[in-house]
This record gives sequence, structure tokens and C-alpha cells, in this order.
Amino acid sequence: MTIEIINTGAELMLGRILNSHHQWLCRALADRGYVVSRQTAVPDSASDIAQAVRESLARSDFIITTGGLGPTSDDLTRESVARLLGRSLREHQETLNRIKDFFEQRNRPMPESTRVQALVPEGALVLGNAHGTAPGLAIELAPNPYRATDSDSWLVMLPGPPRELHPMFNEQIIPLLERMFPLKQAFALKNLRTTGLGESMLEERIAGGLRQSVAAGLEVGYCARPGQVDVRLLARGVDCTELVRDAEQSIRRDVGSGVFGEGDDELEEIVVRLLTQRNQTLALAESCTGGCVANRLTNVAGVSAVFLRGLVTYSNEAKQQLLAVKPETLAAYGAVSEPVAREMAQGARQLSRSHYALAITGIAGPTGGTPEKPVGTVFIALASDGGTDAWKFFNPWDRLTFKDVTASQALNQLRLLLERNG
Amino acid sequence: MTIEIINTGAELMLGRILNSHHQWLCRALADRGYVVSRQTAVPDSASDIAQAVRESLARSDFIITTGGLGPTSDDLTRESVARLLGRSLREHQETLNRIKDFFEQRNRPMPESTRVQALVPEGALVLGNAHGTAPGLAIELAPNPYRATDSDSWLVMLPGPPRELHPMFNEQIIPLLERMFPLKQAFALKNLRTTGLGESMLEERIAGGLRQSVAAGLEVGYCARPGQVDVRLLARGVDCTELVRDAEQSIRRDVGSGVFGEGDDELEEIVVRLLTQRNQTLALAESCTGGCVANRLTNVAGVSAVFLRGLVTYSNEAKQQLLAVKPETLAAYGAVSEPVAREMAQGARQLSRSHYALAITGIAGPTGGTPEKPVGTVFIALASDGGTDAWKFFNPWDRLTFKDVTASQALNQLRLLLERNG
Repeated sequence: MTIEIINTGAELMLGRILNSHHQWLCRALADRGYVVSRQTAVPDSASDIAQAVRESLARSDFIITTGGLGPTSDDLTRESVARLLGRSLREHQETLNRIKDFFEQRNRPMPESTRVQALVPEGALVLGNAHGTAPGLAIELAPNPYRATDSDSWLVMLPGPPRELHPMFNEQIIPLLERMFPLKQAFALKNLRTTGLGESMLEERIAGGLRQSVAAGLEVGYCARPGQVDVRLLARGVDCTELVRDAEQSIRRDVGSGVFGEGDDELEEIVVRLLTQRNQTLALAESCTGGCVANRLTNVAGVSAVFLRGLVTYSNEAKQQLLAVKPETLAAYGAVSEPVAREMAQGARQLSRSHYALAITGIAGPTGGTPEKPVGTVFIALASDGGTDAWKFFNPWDRLTFKDVTASQALNQLRLLLERNG
Repeated sequence: MTIEIINTGAELMLGRILNSHHQWLCRALADRGYVVSRQTAVPDSASDIAQAVRESLARSDFIITTGGLGPTSDDLTRESVARLLGRSLREHQETLNRIKDFFEQRNRPMPESTRVQALVPEGALVLGNAHGTAPGLAIELAPNPYRATDSDSWLVMLPGPPRELHPMFNEQIIPLLERMFPLKQAFALKNLRTTGLGESMLEERIAGGLRQSVAAGLEVGYCARPGQVDVRLLARGVDCTELVRDAEQSIRRDVGSGVFGEGDDELEEIVVRLLTQRNQTLALAESCTGGCVANRLTNVAGVSAVFLRGLVTYSNEAKQQLLAVKPETLAAYGAVSEPVAREMAQGARQLSRSHYALAITGIAGPTGGTPEKPVGTVFIALASDGGTDAWKFFNPWDRLTFKDVTASQALNQLRLLLERNG
């Protein structure tokens, strides 16, 4: 079967925003054994949208559009598609009620323009949107008049905002796709998330153990992000589950605790899970990461049971006042030093009476580096009842990457200690 | 004139990587007044590439492909295009010499597979590549046999690695494009960033004032992100600069301080810029945003001169110990309340001796809501030498959107005060 994605939006064609929908949808489909055969982006003009949809219908079984369902004058997908397919638009009472409720709950007047979002092409399935006003729409073309072969196609129109698109896709489109176009072969997929090893180093380490599985049909893919490399194991056919399981065991043998999670696990989720299981608490003292660790940790629901406080101590005064770092230590070693990292961690732990405290001090750049401590230099310390450990890292990346990689390194040290402490 | 981009690669279709070429090329073209009319991504199969190129040639004047010029078996663009256009491939001696030099300079043997990169379709312009081995290729189709109209088209094939693609595009493709397809009309573009108004509310507010400009040819586009809506103004022709300028003035009149920036400005950049200009400092006391404000502020280089400290005070004990919030206030009103927000801001300001302190307390969810204070309830307070202001917001979004929108609201209150204080 063939799947196509059409992304609409003038801002895409002007390079104002990155087309992250394309990647997200391709990934979500690939994770379930479906591969997208073409992706197209067009401006939000009625004729461009209609032309792109018509061409995709002539080629494919399942066409997904994103965007253009909003209330403003440049939201044209609904109307363009209805006109292309010769279907009239009718007001869908249930959707209109939902839109009214949406604004009522927020104590805001419902703008008249929003009403257009309740219009539905004849015969379309209406896909509820729990996170916004525009419903998704799914239309079955049986038969599809644009294809030479006598086959049916589906056209699904999804809203552009990711917080609306993602749950709608996972909860409503994937089940529809799997029901209408079931996979012909068994399929197994596993994503292992690793940290601490670069992509080529990781590949060198695990390639030998995977050789036999690869010869038997296992596909191995790598996806590197700063501070993290995913290994994706994919197999099809009757032996797929065993192939993937054997490969996973081989990788875990070769990389050990370098594998921190599976699927979409984030380091911060693992850390919160381990702390919660142990009924233990954490405090943070961040300098160069500027709250990045706290922000990532507090993305995890339920973190408030284990996270007592985070201190972003940019100034030396804040380090002294809030973390009891000694002025002599700052004077003797400088704010970016192992002794200061240690005192930050110990101070944060004692003052908050937490089980663990992580401290980070470094030079994020672009300025502030010296020959001995160039931009990218980082000291991380972790205080617990077993004492205080410290590590030095060198992360010479741009400012945002630096913060994110450093935050991952700190969270990973805490994860390793929590795992060791059982 | 019409421009299309075709990106090739299996990893794009599996969602393993983000298609950043698309945005980069669209942006580079838009900045020079050229707008891409369609972008397509296909897997690196010979038939998919040929089909996509043929379809683009039937529609457009200038077609840009990226990727598929390398030496490996999945690099098929050169050959697919040559076959499609019925042009034979010939070894280009100068390119072959350059490839040999490339390896000699690096003291590495030239892999035999690299030789294919010296193959050039008959009549193609060869575009030198200072950063890699694969040259770019540009083919003029005069006339273009795939178009009904009697017009010429250009097909340019560029290498995939960004460090090769970007300079080749800027130095060789842009001049070619401007020579072959000079802009017929002057061109003006402006992006205004707003906050505090939803997309449809914003459009309602500004549409009246823009009516005349739109009738005169101004294009208005909206791009909504949580807590923020961009308005893009685009005009062509002799009056374009005036049209865009008048529209901008009209929007600023109708929305006032709702416009917080231009281009790619972020709220945190504006806040850091205003604080730096005034030589003033900031402290943060975050509860429900969990360090999101601190993290966004510290993405801005140079923030350390104005940002003294950020306190992520999840626990009541931390609020008392670090911010001098009174136990009686917590007991009487609860942690999520205006009085606590005010005391947090005042405590942060006094203890850090900063000019301004922002405090945020609320319920991020998904649990913790009550009938009186449902998930999404937020109190923001801002302390300065003029006293302490406080606001209540209701942001019933998922946890991450809640944090981001709330952080924007807090930063925006500070921006408004800084602008009022001149």
C-alpha cells in the first residue's frame, strides 16, 4: 500500500518554520510498519491544495493532509477538498456544540469565524479534537475516481498544531489505517535509547554481535541526537519477534548501562520513575544549564513528589547565599571548577534535606572561555548519603545544544547511581 | 515564476531525520523575493526520483533537487535524471581531477566508487564543490518538453550535506536564478510577532484596518504557536514597501503592545535586551513552570549580566526557606493563590536584591486540580520598586504547553512593565 503526506502552509514555503509534522508522521507510521512513499508541501492556496490532493489521490491509498483547518481566511483545506470531491459542506451540530463548550469553559467569547470549523464535507467521518476547536476529517473514496486501478482510498485531514495533531493521529488515525489497510506481514520493531557513546563508536561496539541477525534479515538503523543515539531494530516475517529480541540482548550485552531506555523514554522520565520507586528526593543546583535540567524534569507528571527544589545560581552571590558555597573556594578555583561543583551539590542537599543533589557549573559560551577552561567545559557533581562524586566533561557545542547535552549527562549520572543503589 | 524543491532520501521517509534542507532553501529564496511553490520528498529509488522530477518539470520554471549525488548504491539522482532527459553521462575530466586532488590533499586513497561523481549529463553546467567531492549540476531545458507552454526551465541538482549545499546554493545557484529569472517586481516582507491574543481574536482585531491594503495586493498570513501568533505581511510591486509599512502601522495601532517583536524575535530575547539596555536585573521564583522561564531566558547569550538567580520552589518548605513566604499565607490561601504569588515575587526580589522578580504558581496537571482551582489555574506576580502586580490566568493545556504558555505570559508581563518604564 502507498501512503502520502501533504503539509500545507505559506510559512512552510517561506522557510519560516521547520516541517516537523513530516518527520513526526513518518516516524509514527514507520514505528507501526508503514512507510510513507511521498511527502509534499504546498502553500495554503485553494488551487495548490486541490492540485496536490488530486495528484496524491491518483497515486496512493492513504493520503494525510496537515493544516488549513483553522478559522482564519488562509485555512482552505476543508473547502478545497470538498470542492475537489464535489461534496457539499454541512454544519455538524455536535462539533459546533463542542466549539461553543471549548470557549465557554475558558470564559472567552466564541469568535464568529470559528463557526466554519463545524463545517463537514458530506459523508466524512468527524474526528474529535480534545485539544482544540478544529475536528479532523476522514473521507473514504470508494472507489477512488482518480486512480486507474479499481481501488479505494482514504483522505484524512488533520489540524496543524502538534498538540492537536499528535493525539488525534495516535488515537484515531492509526486504528483507522490498521483496520482499513492491515499489514501483510508480521512486523517487529524496537527502539533502544543509549547515551554516553557517539554514533560510530556505538556502531563499532555492537556491529559484531548483530552480524548474524542482520544476515537473517534484521534492519538496524541509527538516529543520533546531541548526547543520545537511538538504535532501531526492525524485522518482518514469521521470525521477526525472535530476530529483534536476540538483537536487543546482544546490544544490551555489548553496551551495558549505556542503554537507558526504550521507545520514546526520556532520561528525565527514567530518573523520576527510579526516584518514585525508591521514595527518594532530589534537589538541583544549576549554573550553566540555566534551569534546563529542572525544566526537563518538571515535564514529567508526578515529579513534585520527588523534586524538592531547583536553584539556578548564575551569580557568585547566589551560589554563596543559596548553596553555602565558600567565598574562598570561588576565589581559589573559580566558579567553573570541580571544588565549586562539589560544594554546590553538598549545599543543595543539606539545605533542602534531599536524598540526592545534582550540581552543574560550566561555560556555555559563546564567550567566557579561557585557554585552561574553554567554552564547553563542564563540572557535574552528585551528592548523596554515599558521598559526593564529580565529573568533568567537554561539550563544545552551540549554547542550546551545550545546555541540553550537559543536562543529559547530569541526569545520566543520577540514573546510573540510582540503578547501582538498586 | 515557479520554483520547486525535491528532497530525496530513505531516512526522510522513515522519519529518522528532520528535513532541514527544505526550510533552509525556502528561507534563502524568500529572503531574495522568490517563493517556492511546492516541495516534495521521495525515497532514493530511481523511479520515484524520475517521477517526481518529471512532474515538477511539467509545472515549474526552476527545480532544485538535493541529495543522491554521492558515491554509494543509493545515490541515484544523477543517473535517474540523465535517463529521464535522454542525455548520456560523460566523464568530466576537470571534475575527476578535482576529486583526485581532494583525496590526495587528505592523504587518503581515492575509492573507485567516487569516480561516478565525475559523470555529467550532456550539456549540464558543472557547479564546483569546495567542501566535498560531488559537483552540483545545472541543466537548462530550452524548451522544456514537459510543459504545455513554450517555456524554458532549469533543473539543478545539489549535494545533500549542508556544508556542501549551503555555499554552493548561495554562491552559484542564487546568481544563476537571478540572472535567468530576474524578479519582475519589487518585493517587501515583514513578520510581526504578537502575544496575548488568539489567532481568530487577532484577525478580528486587525482585519478592518488591513482591508484597504489587502485590496491593494497585500498578502496577510498567520502562524499560531502556543501563546503566540505571527502575522506575516508580504507585498510586491512598486508600492510594496509602503503597503507593508502601512499595514504594520495599522496592526500596531490596533493591537498596541500585543506586538512584541519582529522577524524571529523571541520574548526572552526582548526581555534580556530591555534589561540590558536599562542595566537592570531579574530574579525568578517558579513553581508550576518548573524552570521553563529560567531555561528560556538562559538560551539568550549574555543573560548572565541581568539574570541573578532562578528558584524552582516546588515544595512549600522551599517557598518558605528560599522566598520567605509566610506559613500563614500558605495555610490561609494555599500554594496556588495570588497572595502566595505576591510573597514569592517580593521574597525573590528582596533576597536577591534584583530590580525585578517574577513569580509563578499554578496547577500544571494532569492531576492536582480542584473545582475552585482547576488544572490550568495560574497566578503570576511581578515585583519591582513600583510595587507588586499580580494576574490570574487559565491555561487548560497539556503539561508542556501549559508550562510554555505560562512562561510566555510571565515574560510578557515583564516586557510590558519594562516598556512602560521606558
